[in-house]
Amino acid sequence: MSRDQETRTEDRLARVALTWLTEPGTWSVHRLVERLGAPATLTLLCEGGAPEEKLHATVAARLAAGDSRAAAARALERTDRLGARIVTPDDDEWPAGVEDLRRLALSGASRRVDTETAPPLCFWVRGAWPLAEAMARSVAVVGARAATPYGVHVATELGYGLADREWSVVSGGAFGIDAAAHRGALNAGGVTVAVLACGVDRPYPMGNTALFDRIAETGLLVSEWMPGAEPLRPRFLIRNRVIAAATRGSVLVEASARSGATQTMRRALAIDRPGMVVPGPVTSAMSVGAHELLREQPTARLVTGVAHVLEEVGRIGADLAPPARGPRRPADELDDEAALVLESLPRRGLRSPDAVAARAGVGVRVALRKLSLLEELGLVVRRDGGYALAPPPDRRPAGTRPAGAPPQPE
Amino acid sequence: MSRDQETRTEDRLARVALTWLTEPGTWSVHRLVERLGAPATLTLLCEGGAPEEKLHATVAARLAAGDSRAAAARALERTDRLGARIVTPDDDEWPAGVEDLRRLALSGASRRVDTETAPPLCFWVRGAWPLAEAMARSVAVVGARAATPYGVHVATELGYGLADREWSVVSGGAFGIDAAAHRGALNAGGVTVAVLACGVDRPYPMGNTALFDRIAETGLLVSEWMPGAEPLRPRFLIRNRVIAAATRGSVLVEASARSGATQTMRRALAIDRPGMVVPGPVTSAMSVGAHELLREQPTARLVTGVAHVLEEVGRIGADLAPPARGPRRPADELDDEAALVLESLPRRGLRSPDAVAARAGVGVRVALRKLSLLEELGLVVRRDGGYALAPPPDRRPAGTRPAGAPPQPE
Repeated sequence: MSRDQETRTEDRLARVALTWLTEPGTWSVHRLVERLGAPATLTLLCEGGAPEEKLHATVAARLAAGDSRAAAARALERTDRLGARIVTPDDDEWPAGVEDLRRLALSGASRRVDTETAPPLCFWVRGAWPLAEAMARSVAVVGARAATPYGVHVATELGYGLADREWSVVSGGAFGIDAAAHRGALNAGGVTVAVLACGVDRPYPMGNTALFDRIAETGLLVSEWMPGAEPLRPRFLIRNRVIAAATRGSVLVEASARSGATQTMRRALAIDRPGMVVPGPVTSAMSVGAHELLREQPTARLVTGVAHVLEEVGRIGADLAPPARGPRRPADELDDEAALVLESLPRRGLRSPDAVAARAGVGVRVALRKLSLLEELGLVVRRDGGYALAPPPDRRPAGTRPAGAPPQPE
Repeated sequence: MSRDQETRTEDRLARVALTWLTEPGTWSVHRLVERLGAPATLTLLCEGGAPEEKLHATVAARLAAGDSRAAAARALERTDRLGARIVTPDDDEWPAGVEDLRRLALSGASRRVDTETAPPLCFWVRGAWPLAEAMARSVAVVGARAATPYGVHVATELGYGLADREWSVVSGGAFGIDAAAHRGALNAGGVTVAVLACGVDRPYPMGNTALFDRIAETGLLVSEWMPGAEPLRPRFLIRNRVIAAATRGSVLVEASARSGATQTMRRALAIDRPGMVVPGPVTSAMSVGAHELLREQPTARLVTGVAHVLEEVGRIGADLAPPARGPRRPADELDDEAALVLESLPRRGLRSPDAVAARAGVGVRVALRKLSLLEELGLVVRRDGGYALAPPPDRRPAGTRPAGAPPQPE
């Protein structure tokens, strides 16, 4: 391991340990990390050197429960076992937008959710897409859990329409508007990202488990909290700042008065992201928050569909990322026969070279040659006289990558 | 008749004649009247001196059909027969707001409806309220004819709520939103004003005849066109400028794309009246115009109910008129017995003093004394040995007022 790699590994471990010690978004921690780096900040906090009384007490309480570095090491193992990965600002896939959260420091508000708005320390990610690429052309669709059929219809249409135009749809995975937006994107065969307020291993709510499974397969599950973390109530509001900042703009579909979703919109507007609002019947309690936002926020923009949304996020114009093409996979470069052979392998378990040849419709000799190539590329593994699909590169614990596989973000 | 009265009568006749010669809102006519006065303008036009080719042609065509002064005299007679009255800028009840239409001169647009935006020359009015008083605390509620049940519900609630708070509700008398707003106001026992695009004797559409009868009884029917005038298509848009200018603010409830109602709103905003828009489901074609207006007009304000509307029109604050109390009638000052006697007279026809005494439950001598007082006040007339209700003061031709009756706006 090179000196540089060592430093990066230490930084990653320290960020995970800091996540265990303190809540994401804590400004005092962010400022220390900016000044001293994550490892020195961790040391300082563990030695009782927190610069603020409140942080001091929080850290002391956590340290009484265990050792932060040991907890971080356990979290790293658990992350690997899950096939998840940790993303830090050192990684290429770090979503640049969240750095704009620095600007929220000036709000001067006293409520906890208004003070815990610092940029994230790290993310846990499940899914094959590089996080930055999924976020580069993304729109957040947020709204009420207790959505009406009208809101669900509108959010689904928006999710579908955005995905259909190769925009990622980002939301929070909740019932109602969130789920409808994710589903719309999935139905269009697009990319959708659920930013969670709990561990990526236990996406909340349970009732959306099937949805989260679909999202993990073709999109991303993302969280600032380590695996096993519970969806505590304040975390939803802390999480919302990431949805607002990591995307190109946010659309509110339905919200009751003083909903968490309107807070996401205020975050977005505060850092100059387009904040878009879908109106609804004035007779509906679930549109009260949407209308209030349109009345109170002069920069909030009324939108009635995907065309209006694209008009807003399209404003960023020239610097706009091209449609996301997803992670470049070695499989993308295969010749036709190799691709056929790869497709002939079962999703789970082994298949013999003969059976592979038969399914792929190629000779056994060709099958063996292609299997050997695929093995070299890290796409298949040989085991017990048969071949199996290799686990996806991003779900593979560090250090287990086969030679020849391209470097993967982690 | 005094010299002043003579001048006013001549001015009134000339304005009526000019209405017969040209369409209301014509800028070239308005400018001539400003410079020369109405009688000299009439003379100039009748002598072929129109300053513009188009106006010249219009006037020539009308003059070929008859004499303008004779037509005006016939219109005055017809107005009297209808129990209607003509209101000109000389009258106390002239609604001051319409003078702000001068500012629309600068629009520089070339469409006819955009050039015919000059202040009115005169109004025909049916109903007991002084026009200026009804308009002083008024809100226009406008929208689609093909309104949805949602729009009808919202407009009715708005009409009711405004009237309930002693604001007049002004609209155009059309099906859909207009009718719903008028009905809401009537149901609250409030004042509602229908500004028509045709003669006040034949309010359009016929299907709203019962509604117009209710409005004429307790509110006002108003038009810039003389009795008998037909509701020609362009007149609706010309009329809309009066709805926008005579009121304190306008609320759009439902409108399809490019609806006439959105044009009313643009007029209102152009002369700095609050332009308010009720949003609706984005899935409804009847809210497309409303949402477009909110997106295109930065000063248009989203409102969801009467509280928001009053917040906007309440901005005018200190100069705001107190709640309209309606015309002060001599009958309001009567003692109980005189009031009973007055109520005992039939709505049409005569009744003998004996019959009046019997119905009123007073002695014949008391009845005779009160009838005599009422006659002096101009409230009853004696005829053929019986008594009848006098026609309402505002429906009485000039010069026929009984002595002792207070001056009435005309």
